[in-house]
Amino acid sequence: MTAGIIGATGYVGIELFRLLLNHPGVEKIGLSSVSFEGKNIEDIYPNLFTLSGKKTGGVLSSGDDIAASSDILFTALPNGLCEEWAAKCVGAGKRMIDLSADFRFGDDEGTYKKYYKTEWKHPALHGEAVYGLPELYRAEIARARIVGNPGCYVTSATLALLPALQSGCVRADSIIVDGKSGVSGAGRKAEMAYQFTECGESLAAYSVGTHRHEPEILRNVRGALEKFSASGGDSGRGKARVLFIPHLVPMSRGVFTTVYAPLSAEFAGKEGAAEKIHGLYENFYRDEPFVRVLPPGKIPATRNVRFSNYCDINTFAAQDTLVVTSCLDNMVKGAAGQAVQCMNIMAGLEEDAGLTALPPAF
Amino acid sequence: MTAGIIGATGYVGIELFRLLLNHPGVEKIGLSSVSFEGKNIEDIYPNLFTLSGKKTGGVLSSGDDIAASSDILFTALPNGLCEEWAAKCVGAGKRMIDLSADFRFGDDEGTYKKYYKTEWKHPALHGEAVYGLPELYRAEIARARIVGNPGCYVTSATLALLPALQSGCVRADSIIVDGKSGVSGAGRKAEMAYQFTECGESLAAYSVGTHRHEPEILRNVRGALEKFSASGGDSGRGKARVLFIPHLVPMSRGVFTTVYAPLSAEFAGKEGAAEKIHGLYENFYRDEPFVRVLPPGKIPATRNVRFSNYCDINTFAAQDTLVVTSCLDNMVKGAAGQAVQCMNIMAGLEEDAGLTALPPAF
Amino acid sequence: MTAGIIGATGYVGIELFRLLLNHPGVEKIGLSSVSFEGKNIEDIYPNLFTLSGKKTGGVLSSGDDIAASSDILFTALPNGLCEEWAAKCVGAGKRMIDLSADFRFGDDEGTYKKYYKTEWKHPALHGEAVYGLPELYRAEIARARIVGNPGCYVTSATLALLPALQSGCVRADSIIVDGKSGVSGAGRKAEMAYQFTECGESLAAYSVGTHRHEPEILRNVRGALEKFSASGGDSGRGKARVLFIPHLVPMSRGVFTTVYAPLSAEFAGKEGAAEKIHGLYENFYRDEPFVRVLPPGKIPATRNVRFSNYCDINTFAAQDTLVVTSCLDNMVKGAAGQAVQCMNIMAGLEEDAGLTALPPAF
Amino acid sequence: MTAGIIGATGYVGIELFRLLLNHPGVEKIGLSSVSFEGKNIEDIYPNLFTLSGKKTGGVLSSGDDIAASSDILFTALPNGLCEEWAAKCVGAGKRMIDLSADFRFGDDEGTYKKYYKTEWKHPALHGEAVYGLPELYRAEIARARIVGNPGCYVTSATLALLPALQSGCVRADSIIVDGKSGVSGAGRKAEMAYQFTECGESLAAYSVGTHRHEPEILRNVRGALEKFSASGGDSGRGKARVLFIPHLVPMSRGVFTTVYAPLSAEFAGKEGAAEKIHGLYENFYRDEPFVRVLPPGKIPATRNVRFSNYCDINTFAAQDTLVVTSCLDNMVKGAAGQAVQCMNIMAGLEEDAGLTALPPAF
Repeated sequence: MTAGIIGATGYVGIELFRLLLNHPGVEKIGLSSVSFEGKNIEDIYPNLFTLSGKKTGGVLSSGDDIAASSDILFTALPNGLCEEWAAKCVGAGKRMIDLSADFRFGDDEGTYKKYYKTEWKHPALHGEAVYGLPELYRAEIARARIVGNPGCYVTSATLALLPALQSGCVRADSIIVDGKSGVSGAGRKAEMAYQFTECGESLAAYSVGTHRHEPEILRNVRGALEKFSASGGDSGRGKARVLFIPHLVPMSRGVFTTVYAPLSAEFAGKEGAAEKIHGLYENFYRDEPFVRVLPPGKIPATRNVRFSNYCDINTFAAQDTLVVTSCLDNMVKGAAGQAVQCMNIMAGLEEDAGLTALPPAF
Repeated sequence: MTAGIIGATGYVGIELFRLLLNHPGVEKIGLSSVSFEGKNIEDIYPNLFTLSGKKTGGVLSSGDDIAASSDILFTALPNGLCEEWAAKCVGAGKRMIDLSADFRFGDDEGTYKKYYKTEWKHPALHGEAVYGLPELYRAEIARARIVGNPGCYVTSATLALLPALQSGCVRADSIIVDGKSGVSGAGRKAEMAYQFTECGESLAAYSVGTHRHEPEILRNVRGALEKFSASGGDSGRGKARVLFIPHLVPMSRGVFTTVYAPLSAEFAGKEGAAEKIHGLYENFYRDEPFVRVLPPGKIPATRNVRFSNYCDINTFAAQDTLVVTSCLDNMVKGAAGQAVQCMNIMAGLEEDAGLTALPPAF
Repeated sequence: MTAGIIGATGYVGIELFRLLLNHPGVEKIGLSSVSFEGKNIEDIYPNLFTLSGKKTGGVLSSGDDIAASSDILFTALPNGLCEEWAAKCVGAGKRMIDLSADFRFGDDEGTYKKYYKTEWKHPALHGEAVYGLPELYRAEIARARIVGNPGCYVTSATLALLPALQSGCVRADSIIVDGKSGVSGAGRKAEMAYQFTECGESLAAYSVGTHRHEPEILRNVRGALEKFSASGGDSGRGKARVLFIPHLVPMSRGVFTTVYAPLSAEFAGKEGAAEKIHGLYENFYRDEPFVRVLPPGKIPATRNVRFSNYCDINTFAAQDTLVVTSCLDNMVKGAAGQAVQCMNIMAGLEEDAGLTALPPAF
Repeated sequence: MTAGIIGATGYVGIELFRLLLNHPGVEKIGLSSVSFEGKNIEDIYPNLFTLSGKKTGGVLSSGDDIAASSDILFTALPNGLCEEWAAKCVGAGKRMIDLSADFRFGDDEGTYKKYYKTEWKHPALHGEAVYGLPELYRAEIARARIVGNPGCYVTSATLALLPALQSGCVRADSIIVDGKSGVSGAGRKAEMAYQFTECGESLAAYSVGTHRHEPEILRNVRGALEKFSASGGDSGRGKARVLFIPHLVPMSRGVFTTVYAPLSAEFAGKEGAAEKIHGLYENFYRDEPFVRVLPPGKIPATRNVRFSNYCDINTFAAQDTLVVTSCLDNMVKGAAGQAVQCMNIMAGLEEDAGLTALPPAF
């Protein structure tokens, strides 16, 4: 299989390249970059010195060249630029995984437009796109032509909520997601706010009340309630509400979310509710290759999932509130690793192909 | 004035010493340490090389010697060891500021005992002790013989809540405090969890559901509601509830709390509620020397208060929830600086004496 | 006294402002910035919220306004822009301290031009400018109209060498300076290399063989040899050579230099040479307010001098080589603090006025 | 092949386990720990939750059990404890790779005793042990029964010197090695000096003049001169001298060494010497799988080799001094990765088996 990466020199693109270089099912990789076309990737990323040539010449080509020669295309571009690539891919009978936000909203152009200030030219493509969260949409991903790959905060928060939404142990009408992210989440760009001197030795909230991931988490909550409703869970997705407050943490990689939701009447004030909910979580994720529900009392830490595709989760209940702590590497399960997981599902490969790196202890 | 520090070699003790060395109203300082008695403080803290002699010989003495020669005594010891010092001070007609948790619970021995596993020998002393939060108990502090100085998380969370509790703009029955702390909060001790390799480049929650500051924040909420009730605020302190989840952040100094509380019926769904609440906060803290309510839209960052006694606060309201972000330097306004502020009040000095250091930009 | 800062919004400028705000001998401060003229300094540096008004209106003015209203002018601009300000100051009978490199090379236009690619318009001004290192040129600074204030690496390395050069215990013909700097040394600008994700968790050399501070250290070595030669030290400044290799360290503040120089024939292979040299250093700096020669065996650490004007030094000798370790806060003794020290000398104030802040323990 | 790790819970041991878990030539792994015998490795290292069982039961056994069931034994114990394991291995016809310092000194018991304060019981074992640096002793490693695996500083410094020593472009009589190490080099132990609050945001030298790696680097210099002498290089190993000054850097992983050595008469003052030397380095390491000599002008950074077995090197010459910058991941090429490389050589596997992980960009 030949994979192409449009936007290979951003942080997500280069992480994807690193994963694909060691992927047993990918023979060739094409790299494209508008900013660095014609340059060698090793000049931009010296960590790859002598290493990029194995599956690629190393030289960054034009997007069209890459798209033409790839079986599957990854787009890791800024939001708003991926629609045209999807049109080209579908037109050429190819499949595409988009790591931007462009295909994460299904046919809901209104929400997308409100938060991303861009209009769609090909609404039908959005309508057919599948949301690339394997834990919720594995079967749909397998058949998808276009996958909208979710990002770090949203993946962490959604995985923290799925079992609760399925089981109906919480009310979805006042969910709070307190997110904490490492600096790489801001991508590869020179900005004062992300200089070492500015964000090191500091913690702050940001984008309070305006973050684009709030509507996406809400959409996932509603989508999950809809999907689960046949199996008896409490629907009530009309009343679902999510408040999302992100914080910037002086570390390079990692996203941690602390999710608060009120216990539903069935669980509130009941003895053993905490243990029962923990069991529901373990059960829900029993067969998932990349979600680890920790034993009771063990608390996730971003350090334990760095450089791996794992999302570590645990639950806690007190004062009629469910608290779920959840973390992942924002560049792997929160971006490039999840895209590779989707690719594996789409191509019928082992789901963990290319994703077997173990998280280091430190 | 001569000040004595019992427990001078811990992080809080040494920060207090640093502040008092430059305090215009303190002429002499006595230092005591059980672990290092007889040693010179400069051997333990080489940052003070050549600097400690100005107001003290530099040599660590016994606690009794220090207590005998001091006008005011600061105890910066582990929890459970300060009661005897209070008894001695009061017996000798002296005043004491305790930076441990021992005198933060008034006469509520039950809660103290539950969380600190220690019984009291002098309940009356606890009964007369004043909680050292100037913004709530300034007048009481001025007359106190014993002050129980609040710590970092609790100060940050309580200051974030006071104007809301006074105005009744939130319900106190489901307050969530999501706390984030730098590593110095763990104090000066060699522990694997706080090694650079273990907590650097990582974020994790800890003490979920068992942290000792949860009952203290709740106690403050109830105390504030009681104090404010005469002035028309919503009482209902019986129903008050606080859920507190702390997180460890890879930075040395700083505490940031994100407080979530449901808007009360009077404010929920009302146009202009956010602006009105911000105005209430500005008004409440208008004359406070160390609380800065930021202009609307500006978000506090721990970097902006480091090495200073400021607590920076801002408010935000959405989805019928009040979100208050609040931060301070855990060693200054969250410990030693607040103790100096209390001392100034007790001694009738300018409240900011010795606390005029400006937070550096980086 | 009224002080003016041209270039107040850079890192050096804002650090200077912080020091002057608490300086007892400065009543008013004028601030200028080309990039932010008309804005309030508190909008750019929120750490100063509510604090900048004490000695200034807070609003950034034009340089000419500031120069006109100041008794002494600090220029904290990029290299190459300060000559005109010096001409204006001298023309108006005022004194100026330049924190750029422009006035650090005396009348040696050749070296300046080679490294800074700029020609001089007022060579005579350079000829009269005094190098602002009090430990070497205190008397000259007192009378100077223009002071060229040295920077972080050069101050640290030069102070590490002075006693050795005076005593002749080393040969000056093959001095190696291995420098390590925190990221703030790069100043306030958005650059990829200084993003948290790029320089955090990494160490690298940079500007190998091309760094502008190499010729400045060499110039100081020669200047010191010349100055000391009357008092019997080994001159031989013609043969002096300095090799300087800087490294970027993932910390915000601090410069550490490790200086290597071969022992002279008088000291090489002699028993007790190490102790004797340590004594020479202690003696040389005995009366200096801001240089601390540590006791034998104690090793300087940047942590111990942060936020203070101290330079900590120690010596070690082995294998006929003198090793001097030296560190300081690159923004204080390595920039703004040294400038204030110079101002104090020029104005006949206590040399430590405004510089009494103690380095915190952590 | 079954591999055993004695001392599996230290930082080196756990890094080795991580590498072996993904090693294609290792089927089973035995783990031993004195401190944690009987416990599950996943309880100590939660990053491995659900992952350790693939090649091991996860439970830590006694050393004797592990030794008995292993084809090859890795000892990752504190210095001074590995001799007995070597005796047992050799007695049982097995091979051993020791990651401590115990077998790094050949038959030179005097130097070992001076620096490690321990006497040998089996001098003959030391005499036959091979120093595990493949770039110098590949053939000997292939046949060795006992390998003394070199550590981080020494590997980085030695690799920086080998081509220079072979070519005779430097004099070996006054080599300076300025080392910079991340905190993980101190191992897994709770010590004040390595607390986040103590070593974060600081840089300091340590063990000045007493570090145990100084004699080991010197030994390697002499060994290399001896080995190369037949091929025409300048010997003169009697006069060889190394001065080593290590520094602690606030990062978790990585070692960077800056090596200074005077150019020999043949190269000093010669035009084109720098280019020629760079060519010698490229040539020397042309076929090495894990040493990357960077293109002229590119400077190594620890970030570019993290989590990989690469050592990045570049050369620079000025003022008749050769400066070599060299860096590696102290836990991989500086410890566990190098041991795996040795194992591969001993077992006749591909030399990079299990070592193909790419260094991430950030």
